[in-house]
Amino acid sequence: MKHAGAWNMLTAAVCMALLGCLQAQELQGHVSVILLGATGDLARKYLWQGLFQLYLEEAGKGHSFRFHGTALTSTKQGQEVIAKVLESLSCPRDTAPGRCAELKAQFQQLSEYRRLKTPEDYLALSKDIEARVQHEGLQEVGRIFYFSVPPFAYAEIARSISSSCRPGPGAWLRVVLEKPFGHDHRSAQQLAAELGSFFQEEEMYRVDHYLGKQVVAQILPFRDQNRKALDGLWNRHHVERVEIIMKETVDAEGRTSFYEEYGVIGDVLQNHLTEILMLVAMELPLNLSSSEAVLEHKLQAFRALRGLQRGSAVVGQYQAYRGQVRRELQKPDSFHSLTPTFAGVLVHIDNLRWEGVPFILMSGKALDERVGYVRILFKDQAYCAQSEKRWVPAQSHCLPQQIIFYIGHGELGGPAVLVSRNLFRPSLPSASWKEVEGQPGLRLFGRPLSDYYAYSPVREQDAYSILISRIFHRRKDSFITMENLLASWVFWTPLLDSLAHEVPRLYPGGAENGHLLDFEFSGSHLSFSQPPLEQLVLGPDSAPMPSDFQVLRAKYRGSPLISAWPEELIARLAGDIEAAAVQAVKRFGKFHLALSGGSSPVALFQQLAMGHYGFPWAHTHLWLVDERCVPLWDPESNFQGLQAHLLQHVRVPYYNVHPMPVHRRQRLCAEEDQGAQAYAEEISTLVTNSSFDLVLLGMGTDGHTASLFPQSPVGLDGKQLVVLTTSPSSPHRRMSLSLPVINRAHKVAVLVMGRMKREIAMLVSRVGREPRKWPISGVLPDSGQLVWYMDYDAFLG
Amino acid sequence: MKHAGAWNMLTAAVCMALLGCLQAQELQGHVSVILLGATGDLARKYLWQGLFQLYLEEAGKGHSFRFHGTALTSTKQGQEVIAKVLESLSCPRDTAPGRCAELKAQFQQLSEYRRLKTPEDYLALSKDIEARVQHEGLQEVGRIFYFSVPPFAYAEIARSISSSCRPGPGAWLRVVLEKPFGHDHRSAQQLAAELGSFFQEEEMYRVDHYLGKQVVAQILPFRDQNRKALDGLWNRHHVERVEIIMKETVDAEGRTSFYEEYGVIGDVLQNHLTEILMLVAMELPLNLSSSEAVLEHKLQAFRALRGLQRGSAVVGQYQAYRGQVRRELQKPDSFHSLTPTFAGVLVHIDNLRWEGVPFILMSGKALDERVGYVRILFKDQAYCAQSEKRWVPAQSHCLPQQIIFYIGHGELGGPAVLVSRNLFRPSLPSASWKEVEGQPGLRLFGRPLSDYYAYSPVREQDAYSILISRIFHRRKDSFITMENLLASWVFWTPLLDSLAHEVPRLYPGGAENGHLLDFEFSGSHLSFSQPPLEQLVLGPDSAPMPSDFQVLRAKYRGSPLISAWPEELIARLAGDIEAAAVQAVKRFGKFHLALSGGSSPVALFQQLAMGHYGFPWAHTHLWLVDERCVPLWDPESNFQGLQAHLLQHVRVPYYNVHPMPVHRRQRLCAEEDQGAQAYAEEISTLVTNSSFDLVLLGMGTDGHTASLFPQSPVGLDGKQLVVLTTSPSSPHRRMSLSLPVINRAHKVAVLVMGRMKREIAMLVSRVGREPRKWPISGVLPDSGQLVWYMDYDAFLG
Repeated sequence: MKHAGAWNMLTAAVCMALLGCLQAQELQGHVSVILLGATGDLARKYLWQGLFQLYLEEAGKGHSFRFHGTALTSTKQGQEVIAKVLESLSCPRDTAPGRCAELKAQFQQLSEYRRLKTPEDYLALSKDIEARVQHEGLQEVGRIFYFSVPPFAYAEIARSISSSCRPGPGAWLRVVLEKPFGHDHRSAQQLAAELGSFFQEEEMYRVDHYLGKQVVAQILPFRDQNRKALDGLWNRHHVERVEIIMKETVDAEGRTSFYEEYGVIGDVLQNHLTEILMLVAMELPLNLSSSEAVLEHKLQAFRALRGLQRGSAVVGQYQAYRGQVRRELQKPDSFHSLTPTFAGVLVHIDNLRWEGVPFILMSGKALDERVGYVRILFKDQAYCAQSEKRWVPAQSHCLPQQIIFYIGHGELGGPAVLVSRNLFRPSLPSASWKEVEGQPGLRLFGRPLSDYYAYSPVREQDAYSILISRIFHRRKDSFITMENLLASWVFWTPLLDSLAHEVPRLYPGGAENGHLLDFEFSGSHLSFSQPPLEQLVLGPDSAPMPSDFQVLRAKYRGSPLISAWPEELIARLAGDIEAAAVQAVKRFGKFHLALSGGSSPVALFQQLAMGHYGFPWAHTHLWLVDERCVPLWDPESNFQGLQAHLLQHVRVPYYNVHPMPVHRRQRLCAEEDQGAQAYAEEISTLVTNSSFDLVLLGMGTDGHTASLFPQSPVGLDGKQLVVLTTSPSSPHRRMSLSLPVINRAHKVAVLVMGRMKREIAMLVSRVGREPRKWPISGVLPDSGQLVWYMDYDAFLG
Repeated sequence: MKHAGAWNMLTAAVCMALLGCLQAQELQGHVSVILLGATGDLARKYLWQGLFQLYLEEAGKGHSFRFHGTALTSTKQGQEVIAKVLESLSCPRDTAPGRCAELKAQFQQLSEYRRLKTPEDYLALSKDIEARVQHEGLQEVGRIFYFSVPPFAYAEIARSISSSCRPGPGAWLRVVLEKPFGHDHRSAQQLAAELGSFFQEEEMYRVDHYLGKQVVAQILPFRDQNRKALDGLWNRHHVERVEIIMKETVDAEGRTSFYEEYGVIGDVLQNHLTEILMLVAMELPLNLSSSEAVLEHKLQAFRALRGLQRGSAVVGQYQAYRGQVRRELQKPDSFHSLTPTFAGVLVHIDNLRWEGVPFILMSGKALDERVGYVRILFKDQAYCAQSEKRWVPAQSHCLPQQIIFYIGHGELGGPAVLVSRNLFRPSLPSASWKEVEGQPGLRLFGRPLSDYYAYSPVREQDAYSILISRIFHRRKDSFITMENLLASWVFWTPLLDSLAHEVPRLYPGGAENGHLLDFEFSGSHLSFSQPPLEQLVLGPDSAPMPSDFQVLRAKYRGSPLISAWPEELIARLAGDIEAAAVQAVKRFGKFHLALSGGSSPVALFQQLAMGHYGFPWAHTHLWLVDERCVPLWDPESNFQGLQAHLLQHVRVPYYNVHPMPVHRRQRLCAEEDQGAQAYAEEISTLVTNSSFDLVLLGMGTDGHTASLFPQSPVGLDGKQLVVLTTSPSSPHRRMSLSLPVINRAHKVAVLVMGRMKREIAMLVSRVGREPRKWPISGVLPDSGQLVWYMDYDAFLG
C-alpha cells in the first residue's frame, strides 16, 4: 500500500506540474486498439506488453481504451492464449505487487479476443465498437490496427478494414505494419500501391523496431543535445569512418523459408542498418520535435547516397546453411543456395558533409558474438610530442576518439552510449540515462571502458513499448514512410540484383571464422582480406561465375575487341585511356578526349575519378561527342553526367572543359545561333588537325552512335565537324560530332554493355560499312586505331 | 698475419670478379684531399675517420692519395692535434690489430698538417702538390677541399682556392660545404651567388649529413626494391600520414649564439627533415643510379609543396633557454628571445599522389627522449568481422599498418627499417641488412616489436664516412644542389617571416612536458592540443601580440568596419560570406558572388575551400569583379587564382562559373569582340535586376578598386555594367565591373590587408565621394550594405 500511495502521489505531482493537466484528465475520447495476429509470437512476446504499457501511461490522461486481440484462431483457443499472455504481463519495476495486480485486472477487463476472418467479422467488430461507445456515452476518437501477420495477408485484411471497419467521420484510423515490406524495389512498390488503395499514407505506420531501441532512439536527441561539441566534428573533416554493425551468433535454422527470400540484406541491412545510417548521416533539423522536418531531412540523406555496385559488398554464407535449406525446404542435394547470411557493405554519401567517409554496414548469422553498435571513429589528427608510454588516456588526442551507440548485448551486455574521454563530456538527459559502473578488465573498441564516458538507460525499455507509445502520439518520424521505404529499396535493389548470381564465401561459423570474413576497401570497392579457404563448386551446367575475372581478346569487324565482365572491362578501358593520356601529354603536352554520354560511361567516369591518380588531368581537354538540346544543368544533359561523375572529382582546368554550345542566347540549338559551327571552330582552333587523341563512343540498340541515328541526313560524310541531328527518342534535337571528325581521331573506343545490346552487336558484327542504316558501321578511323570494349552480356549474351 | 692474408685474398677475389680490375689496379692518378678546419670538433670526431675509411676502400683500386689537414692554428699545435686524432682512428671491425696498425701507419704517412691562412699559403700548397706529383711521377686527377669551417669564412677561403689552389687542366676540383647555408632565402641566395663566383655548381658538394645516415640513405633503395608491394600503397589513397621526427633531449646550452640565429627550423627542419620529406614524397625515378634523375625528381617534389602559412606550425621554447641566452650572449634580464627550440609543422603536397596527406615534421630540444624516425602510417581500410580479442596481429588488417625508417637512438637504440607484418614482407639487401633480434617487452608505435619485420644494418656506418665515399664517387644526389637548397628556403622563409614575432609556447623540458607540446591539425591549420600553462609576458612597450585574436568593430567612411589580425579577419569574412550565401539560397535558390583577384583574396579562397563544408556551392554563381586581358590560363589571370585556390577544391557546377570573356576569337579584349557587352548581357540575364548578392572588392595603394583606376574615363557612372579600362601597371588592358553595377549589389565587402595599405586607408578615411580621384570612394551601395574588412596592419599601421 505504501507503494501504491507513492504511485498516486506521483501522478498527482505530475498533474500539478503540468499546465492543463486537469483538462487533460477530462474525457478526451475513446481509442480502440485492434491487434491482428494477437496470438502470434511477436504479439505474445512484445506487443501485449507494449499495449499494457500504453494503457498505464495514457489511461490516466483522459482517453478511454479498449484492446481487441484478433486472429484466425477459434474464439475459445484464442481466448485461452490471450488470457495466459495477459496474466504474464509485468508492471513497471517500482510498482507494488498489489497495485500491479489491480492494474493488470483493469487492463484485462478492457481486453478481449475475437476471431477476425471474413469482411463480416470486421463489420461486426466495427458495429460492436460503435455500440459500446454509444452505450457508454463516449466519443470515439480513433482506431489503431496493428498488423502482426505475415505480409501475404496484408491486402485482404487491409481491404476488410478499409471497407468495413473504418471509424466514423472525425475519428482517425492508424494501421501499423511490420516488415518485410517487399524484397526489392518492385515488390515494395507493388505492396505500397496495394496498401495505398486502402489507406492514406498518413494512416500507415510502418514499424522498424530498431527505431524503438533505446540507443537508436537516442541518436538524434544525442546529436541535438551535444550540438555544440559535435557541430565541428560531425563531418568528413573529422570522421574517419562509421561502422553500423549487427552481429548474431544464432543461425537461420527453422527460418530458412523466410531467409531464402530475404537473406541478410533484406532481413537486416535494407531496414535496420539503413535507418541507423540515416540517423547518423542526415542533417540535423533545427527542431527535432517536428516529425515532418525529421522525415524530410532523412529523405534528403537518402538522395545523397552513392549508388551501390557489385564491388560495394562482400557476402558470405555459413557452411551449415545449405544443409538446413535442403532439409527445411525439401530440396535435393544438388541444390545450392546463393543466399547470403553475412554481408559487409561499403556506403558512401555524396554530399559535402560526408564525401569520402566510409560507412560500413555489416551483419551476419553464425558469427562469433552477438552485438549491435554504431561506432563513429574520429580521425587521428594529432601528433603527440611525448613518448607513447607517457600518454594520459583521458588527455592524449593521439589515442582513439570515438562515439559508440551500443545497441545491446556484446561484452557490455546492454544498451549504452560511449564517448571517449579525450573527446568531450557528453550531455544526456539525466532522468533517463545514468553513468555506467566500471567493469575492470573490460575493453571496448581497443580501449578500456574507463577511457569512455559511458551512459546506460536508467530503465531498460522494450522497443515495441516505445513504438506503440509513439504511434499513439503520432510521432511519424519513428516510422518508415513510403517515400523512405522506396528510397531504401531504390538504394539496395541494384546491389541485390548484381549479387543474385554471386557465390557467397562459405564460413564455418562462430569463433572458427578467424579472419575469413574480414574485409577491406579501396576507393569504393570492398573485398575480403584473405583468400578463400574453400570454393563452392557449382554443377557442371551452371553459368560461368562472375568472379571469373578474365579478359577475352578477339576481333570484331576486323578490329581488336576486348571482352570481360563489366568491372574488369571498365577497369581495362580506364587503364587504356590513362595510358593514351600519359603518352599524348608526354608527346604533345596535352590530351584531347571526346566523351559520350549515357549510362555505360558513368562507371567509367567513376573509375577514372577514383582510381587513376596518375592521370594528367591538368593537361587534358574534355570534349563532348554529342549532346541533347537541353540546358547544361538539365539532368538529361550529357554534360551533367560528365560533371557529376567525373569533373567534380578531378582537377580539369575550367578552360579545358568544352561543353557543346546547345544553349545560346537562351535558346536551344537554334540554327541561327550557329552552335554547331562555334563548336567546330573551337575544335579546329585547339585540336591539331581536328584529330582528337581519343573518342569514346557507345552503340544504340538501333545501331546509332554519337547522336548519329539511322537515316540521318547529315553528319555521315562531308566536311562538317559538328552537326544538329534528330533523335527518334526525346529530347529529339541533338548536337553531335560527325562521322568524318570521329574517323580522324588517333584512337576510337566503342563501349558496349548489357544484354540489351546483344542483338545489335550480333547484327553489326556481320554487316559491311553501311552508315546510313547503322551509323556505328561507319566508324573506322582513317589512320587511327579502333578498339571495341564489350562486356560478356553484350558479346556472349 | 692470418687476418692480413684474408684481407689480401679478399682484395684479390674482388679484383677477379670485377671486369677491368687489372687496369683499375694500374695507376689511375693522384687525389689530394684538403680538410679545412682539420683540428675542429667535426673533423676530429668524424671527418678524419671518414678519410681513413676512404683510403681503406679506394687505395687498393689504383688511386694514390694525400691528405692535408689545414687550419689557422700554428703548425706545431696543429700537428700535435692531428697526430692524436690519427692515432685514435679505428679500423673495420674484423681487422686484426697488427694489420690495423700497419694501415694506420700508411695513412699517417700520407697525412700532414699545415697552416692555411693567406692566399700565399694556398698557392704554396698548390705548388707543393704539383711538385710532389711531378717528383713521384704521378698524374694529378683531382682535389677535394672539405670546408669544416664556420660559414663566415667561406668566401675568403673560396676566393683563395679559386685563385691560387685550383688543380691544373684535366684534373677536377670538388669543394665540400657544410650547412648552414644561410638562414633564409635571401641569405642563402647571397651565399650561393658568392660561392658561385668562385666555383661551378658541379664542383660544389653541399653536405646534409642526414643523407648519409644509413637508414635515410636506404629510403630510396627501399622504395625501389619494394616497388611491387609499394606501387599501390605509396599514395593518398593508402597513406594516412607521414611523420618525420627528430627529438633531442639535450638543449642548446653552449650553442645559443648559433641557435639564436637559426632556431630549430633553420637547424633541423629546413635541411634534415625537408630532405627526408623529399625522399619519401618524390616520384621514384625508373633508374636510381642516375644522380640527375634523382635530383630532378626531388626538385619536382619541391615544386608541389603547398606554401606554409603562419597556421602551419606550432612553436615552443624550453624554459631555461632565455636564461642561457642572457648568460651566453650577455643580454639584460629584460631580453626575451622568440627563437623556437621546438617546432611542429604540417606540410601538404599538392599533387595527385599526396593531396590531402598530412606530413608532420617535428623537432625539438629538451624533449623527453632522443630519437629520429620517419613513420608512414597507412589508412585503416579494413573491417574485422571477429571480436577484437580474436585478432591475430600478423594477419589482422585492422591493426596498424606502418613502415618506419628508424634513424637511430630511441628505445630501439640504433638504426632500423620496420614494416608491419600485416602489411608485406620487405626486401632489403641481405649483405648489408639483417633481421633485428627480438627484444621482449619492447613496443614501438603502439605495437610490440614482434609485430614488425625489422632489419638493422649488418655494420653500422657513420654518415660522414658514407658521404665522403660518395663525394669521391661523384654521387651528387646525396648532396644538396643549389636549386634544391633555394627551393627549400623558398618553402621555409615565409613561415620564418610570419613566426618572427610569434611568442613560442614555453615548456619545462623532458618528461615534464606532459601533453603540453602535443598538437593537432584541422585542414592545414595546426594548433596545440592543450591551452598554455603560462604565457610569456612581454614588456609594456612591446607590440600587441599576434596571438591576441580579437576583433575590433568600428566605423569607416560611415560604414561598418571589422578589423583583426589577418587570419581572424579572413575567417570572419569567410563566415560572413557563407552566411550571406546560405540566406540567399534559402530565399532565392541561388547566390551570385562577384570576386576580385589579387593576393589578399587567396587566403580567403583557401579558407572558403577548406573550412566551409556547409557552403551551398551547388547553388552559387561565381563572377569576376575584374580581369586582366590575358588568356584565362595565364598565371597573371585573376581567374587562375580563383581556379587554383577555390574552384579546384569545391563543387561549383561548370555553368555557374562566369569568367570574364577577355579572350575571344583568339584576341584579347578587342573592342570589336564585344566581350564587355557579352558579360553585361550574361549578368542581366542571370542576375535579377543585375544586383549581385555580394561583391568582394579590394583597394589599391592609389585608391583604385576593381579595375577602375584614378582618372578612369569609363565605369564610374553611366549605364554600362562592364567596361574595358587601362591600368597604370602591366598588363595594362583590363575588364571591370562598373561602379554603378557594384553599387547595385545587396552587399559589398572591401578587403584591405597589409602595411602597404596603411597610407591610402588613412587618406580614404578622410575624403568625400570623389571617385574620379579615388575610385574606391565611389563605392556606396544604393540600397545594399557596405562592410570594410581591414587587418590591423592596414588599419592601425
